Amino acid sequence: MKTLAIDAMGGDFGPPVCVPACAEYLQSVQDARVVLVGDSRQIKPLIPHHLIRSIDVIHCEHAVAMGDKPSQVVRSKEKTSMSIAVELVQQKDADACVSAGNTGALMALSKRLLTMIEGVSRPAIMGVVPSVDGYSYLLDMGANVDCDAEQLLEFALMATLLVQALDEKISPSVALLNNGQEDIKGNSQVKQAAELLTNNPFINYIGFIEGHNLYQAVADIIVCDGFVGNIALKASEGVANFILDVFRREVDKKKYLKPLFWLLLQCTRRASKQVDPRYLNGACFLGVKGVVVKSHGHADSLAFKQALLYAHKMVDANIVDKLSALSEIK
Amino acid sequence: MKTLAIDAMGGDFGPPVCVPACAEYLQSVQDARVVLVGDSRQIKPLIPHHLIRSIDVIHCEHAVAMGDKPSQVVRSKEKTSMSIAVELVQQKDADACVSAGNTGALMALSKRLLTMIEGVSRPAIMGVVPSVDGYSYLLDMGANVDCDAEQLLEFALMATLLVQALDEKISPSVALLNNGQEDIKGNSQVKQAAELLTNNPFINYIGFIEGHNLYQAVADIIVCDGFVGNIALKASEGVANFILDVFRREVDKKKYLKPLFWLLLQCTRRASKQVDPRYLNGACFLGVKGVVVKSHGHADSLAFKQALLYAHKMVDANIVDKLSALSEIK
Repeated sequence: MKTLAIDAMGGDFGPPVCVPACAEYLQSVQDARVVLVGDSRQIKPLIPHHLIRSIDVIHCEHAVAMGDKPSQVVRSKEKTSMSIAVELVQQKDADACVSAGNTGALMALSKRLLTMIEGVSRPAIMGVVPSVDGYSYLLDMGANVDCDAEQLLEFALMATLLVQALDEKISPSVALLNNGQEDIKGNSQVKQAAELLTNNPFINYIGFIEGHNLYQAVADIIVCDGFVGNIALKASEGVANFILDVFRREVDKKKYLKPLFWLLLQCTRRASKQVDPRYLNGACFLGVKGVVVKSHGHADSLAFKQALLYAHKMVDANIVDKLSALSEIK
Repeated sequence: MKTLAIDAMGGDFGPPVCVPACAEYLQSVQDARVVLVGDSRQIKPLIPHHLIRSIDVIHCEHAVAMGDKPSQVVRSKEKTSMSIAVELVQQKDADACVSAGNTGALMALSKRLLTMIEGVSRPAIMGVVPSVDGYSYLLDMGANVDCDAEQLLEFALMATLLVQALDEKISPSVALLNNGQEDIKGNSQVKQAAELLTNNPFINYIGFIEGHNLYQAVADIIVCDGFVGNIALKASEGVANFILDVFRREVDKKKYLKPLFWLLLQCTRRASKQVDPRYLNGACFLGVKGVVVKSHGHADSLAFKQALLYAHKMVDANIVDKLSALSEIK
């Protein structure tokens, strides 16, 4: 029996997204329970009758706001829906915690309450990027903005251990995100990291990849520092929205295009689950002693359900135990 | 009379793209000449009869390859279509040089032959990013992979001088690309640069922007280091291609969608020149004593023509003189 602790107040929408997503999740897996933490007056009316036995609610008056400073959230004595959800993992009352709330605060609380796995100097955020033919794991997606070469190596090692467990790949390929594929390209950290990765017998290092390769599944694991990872992902999101905006404006001007556009969008959406970013929602905090999954703040219930399934998969793969091997291979 | 020197052998396509683009360019502007440098056997048959007087050809047997090392290209005694095009600017036989070839080699040749404007420590590559309602200038797009805060300030100063001249804006707004909008966000260079920009009276600094804001024209000028700029732009390109690939695959599977897709694409393309990336092709090397414009290597003739028009605009705006003011305001 797996138990997921959910920060029901996190993200842009809170309970109206989190609660239906939990219901969908519980119907698609077996042997799972969910604990929803947050304002019970908002949560309880949304729980379907037949699931009342599988969903617990812990009432909590306070929630972490998107603009709250992580350091203040950690120091505060006030319990929040987020801090209680992480505490449930700390106390072994839950196997994993999922939140769509403030990323920095969730990371700070996870580090403080769950502590770090031995041998890990800093945790990383690992997510999934889509392609037409598969997907890649990308880290760090924003936890560490100043990374040296040793940290990039550590990220590669953690991700290798994890992908071995998650996808049953014996030797997942690792690439470094760079501004060119040639050896002479790269800033100083990336060049040094390339040397470390080349010389590490545990890592199946395949070389540099560029920004446009991110969506081509050219490697199982793509490593970069959190500053670059964050900007690359958000720029990608920006372009996708920009393209759809252009189509939409044109359709608004020429009404006869409207049915065509929607037909196209519907057909594509239905057919291409693997490329709908909502199906890849959920990023895992690697390096803390517990499974913590961050959902996109703007996730709808379909996307939030995927974050729950991602957490489920992480618990199944026993990632904390797997990552404990890090100190041996480092 | 303006003269543009063109490296006709640069880019993925060479003369079949460059020559028609020059013809189109000459028909859309007045008082302009073009010097095409490259293999005259490939170039001459492509020149339309009525333009023979406006197009000179300088024959050259050699061309810089995409994989050539910039340092070797500069040291080599062999004349290439690229080096001759830059030399024409150096010798004042041309007002600007345009190439779709190897970026690093073009930058190295420009620095060596044209030398740097006084007060500029390192040149930057400035391009244009689109949005639904306008555009922003982005720099550095890849010339400098390790930048400190002072360099980011210098980029902001150069771009401010330039946009004042190009778009006749008295006080163009400047933003820093970051992993968050809050003051606490950012790596150490970006945080320090924010302080320098805030305290510089010449700069209209408006704060941090994030990756998804790149395509929203939230600032006239967006500053970042070349490593981040390169990856953000290439990731954006990757996503755009990925989205179109998904549509295309679906259309291939469901043949009845094909006419709808093409109708939509055509209508959108015709109506939205401002958002077609080909209309924003062309990146300028800021800081060298001459106008050098780099076209996307994969540019078609429409896109290459835009790079020529961009160079034309730079010459009109007298950018080298404008940037000479840098040492006074620094």
